[in-house]
Amino acid sequence: MFVLVNLKAYPCDPIEVATAAADVADDSGVRVAVAPQAAHIEPVAETGVETWAQHISPNGHGSHTGSTLAEAVADAGAVGTMLNHSENRLKLADIDASLAAADRVDLETIVCANNPEQIGAAAALGPDAVAVEPPELIGTGTPVSKADPDIVTGAVDAASRVDGDVDVHCGAGISTGEDIVSASDLGATGVLLASGVAKADDPRAALEDLVEPLN
Amino acid sequence: MFVLVNLKAYPCDPIEVATAAADVADDSGVRVAVAPQAAHIEPVAETGVETWAQHISPNGHGSHTGSTLAEAVADAGAVGTMLNHSENRLKLADIDASLAAADRVDLETIVCANNPEQIGAAAALGPDAVAVEPPELIGTGTPVSKADPDIVTGAVDAASRVDGDVDVHCGAGISTGEDIVSASDLGATGVLLASGVAKADDPRAALEDLVEPLN
Amino acid sequence: MFVLVNLKAYPCDPIEVATAAADVADDSGVRVAVAPQAAHIEPVAETGVETWAQHISPNGHGSHTGSTLAEAVADAGAVGTMLNHSENRLKLADIDASLAAADRVDLETIVCANNPEQIGAAAALGPDAVAVEPPELIGTGTPVSKADPDIVTGAVDAASRVDGDVDVHCGAGISTGEDIVSASDLGATGVLLASGVAKADDPRAALEDLVEPLN
Amino acid sequence: MFVLVNLKAYPCDPIEVATAAADVADDSGVRVAVAPQAAHIEPVAETGVETWAQHISPNGHGSHTGSTLAEAVADAGAVGTMLNHSENRLKLADIDASLAAADRVDLETIVCANNPEQIGAAAALGPDAVAVEPPELIGTGTPVSKADPDIVTGAVDAASRVDGDVDVHCGAGISTGEDIVSASDLGATGVLLASGVAKADDPRAALEDLVEPLN
Repeated sequence: MFVLVNLKAYPCDPIEVATAAADVADDSGVRVAVAPQAAHIEPVAETGVETWAQHISPNGHGSHTGSTLAEAVADAGAVGTMLNHSENRLKLADIDASLAAADRVDLETIVCANNPEQIGAAAALGPDAVAVEPPELIGTGTPVSKADPDIVTGAVDAASRVDGDVDVHCGAGISTGEDIVSASDLGATGVLLASGVAKADDPRAALEDLVEPLN
Repeated sequence: MFVLVNLKAYPCDPIEVATAAADVADDSGVRVAVAPQAAHIEPVAETGVETWAQHISPNGHGSHTGSTLAEAVADAGAVGTMLNHSENRLKLADIDASLAAADRVDLETIVCANNPEQIGAAAALGPDAVAVEPPELIGTGTPVSKADPDIVTGAVDAASRVDGDVDVHCGAGISTGEDIVSASDLGATGVLLASGVAKADDPRAALEDLVEPLN
Repeated sequence: MFVLVNLKAYPCDPIEVATAAADVADDSGVRVAVAPQAAHIEPVAETGVETWAQHISPNGHGSHTGSTLAEAVADAGAVGTMLNHSENRLKLADIDASLAAADRVDLETIVCANNPEQIGAAAALGPDAVAVEPPELIGTGTPVSKADPDIVTGAVDAASRVDGDVDVHCGAGISTGEDIVSASDLGATGVLLASGVAKADDPRAALEDLVEPLN
Repeated sequence: MFVLVNLKAYPCDPIEVATAAADVADDSGVRVAVAPQAAHIEPVAETGVETWAQHISPNGHGSHTGSTLAEAVADAGAVGTMLNHSENRLKLADIDASLAAADRVDLETIVCANNPEQIGAAAALGPDAVAVEPPELIGTGTPVSKADPDIVTGAVDAASRVDGDVDVHCGAGISTGEDIVSASDLGATGVLLASGVAKADDPRAALEDLVEPLN
């Protein structure tokens, strides 16, 4: 399982979370990555943790003030990027162009979507992975794998019908190791989580609890 | 073949084009529809021509000032809607929600896209049809079926791999009946055109020339 | 006082509201206008009521599929347009360009904004009027003139400092004639209202009650 | 005069430009700042140069994946931010909210705009400075101060009518020290430039030439 901790714009210490994530990944052998704000990618990557961008813009080099250039996040140390998170929905054509941008600098890609139909659409664009996150469950602590297991299996089916090489992750409400195991049982090969770690009093303990059942 | 004449925001007389299109459809037996500005749907529909919206918003009834409600365009006489035209690109989630909105009032749907990958993505959302329109050919008079036939066959392949029930149309640069025949030969079952009719000195003659080789 | 009834995307009968508004305006001498969906502008205008658009796009004639062209809404019978409603926020540059578009076809303009600072900004662009609508009060039935009178007087001050010729309207939560009188006492020369009329069981009675204290 | 070098998404070495800018500022006493990609703010700030963000999002802390949080760019070393650049136009309400976000962390602010009307609007929102940049001159090498001096004096007038405390900068086409002197003569207190330095073969020499006439 791949565990991606999305720090969003939370008031956490990104270095503290990153350091904990790097240690927990080392100790457990579970792949754990952290997606900080773009301005924090460089110091987060310097902790040694696998570092992801939360988003990149569809453009290449050029006159694009305020964009988040794929080359810049890669240069700062990111090895992957999320795209089309429900808090940052993109135009279909921009998802396609952003995937091409990621490809230019070998960033791994996860395209998020709301439901199996959109997961099928996202998979057709050829990302490395898709992630199904029902918006109504984000931040609730009720994991999608319990609240709506059919949406996870539906996403796995939709993606595999379109492109069998695309991994399916799931997110929304995941906060325990048990949630990750359920997601895995439903066919997901990764999870996206956020507040469960980023807002935890002790992010390291939260991460240790999360990966514990995976060993 | 289905011929959809998109009036965009052109300075044409929508009633003149609509009347001509209705007559040409009647005389030729070819299915010809017109997509005017939302504010012109009612008078255009009153000519008897098959009338389409250029776009609908993803929302349902409610507090959505400035939206283009599916129910309102249907009520005014539209029987179909384009979505995600290259001049009006939509978020993936909004294409999905707009398709659901169209479904509520039985509007037929065509989702436009740039290339075969995006056509596959659009097809995964379950519209009635997709339309491939390379943006660089729009308005050029160089038909996509000549300039880039592979993009049409690629679109047909991409759509059929995802959902065999989704029709594939093509657009961009189409202005003659011969262009339509080529599109049909490549597997398209409809064409989108705009300036070739809307900017013609004599829209009726332009339409007659267009459908002539289809009989 | 100017009373603008915004029908948003409500499931009301626009012709019924328009007919009632036309009659109430005639009987009371109060200026009452109705802003329907773009697709309903023509039939609404045919009732004889003063008809407004809820929004226009910044573009002129041309290749702008899915836009709401100023010329089209004017042609359908609109004599004014709202811009930048809180449910349809626009880019600063697009408000400016939409005002120029409205000017081309002599549409009267009201630019909405959240607070006195934004009202000052809107006034600097030279619309006919600005309207202050705190988003948190929209649809509540608690009128801005009671809940937050300072925001109305602040808006009047901000607009007059920038351009003394710009009228100030107010909206959000207005549903009674008394609310309109309070708005007038605070310096507003018009009100925007929506659900109070559009969702009323008897829109005609609601409008009669609204204008009654203005005579 | 304040000289802000916007690196946009150019394929330059941000550290090389930043180091040169820091040195030139030290040697000349002219205030020179650099605005890199968000992911490069931290290493650019570490050179000692005054560092700006190209953009910040309107949100505060919270669930805002893919946003550019004011706190994050400040934490990485930015002391100011541009907003509403013509390549990144913002909604009026978002400019207002982004200024509030900048205020939370004491970022200095420059709001860009196209013309004197929009400059007046931007000034009404209370930024530290506004910058007038006619989009048609950006990247041309023809300075706005020569091509269209009236737009600079018009901007200075528009801003001072609304708020005398707001500085006026100008941009677009500025590439020589003489251009900066002309801008200053027209009432601007700063300039924005980009390709003239970022695309120069020798950014240090370009910066030295720029500031030379200012001493």
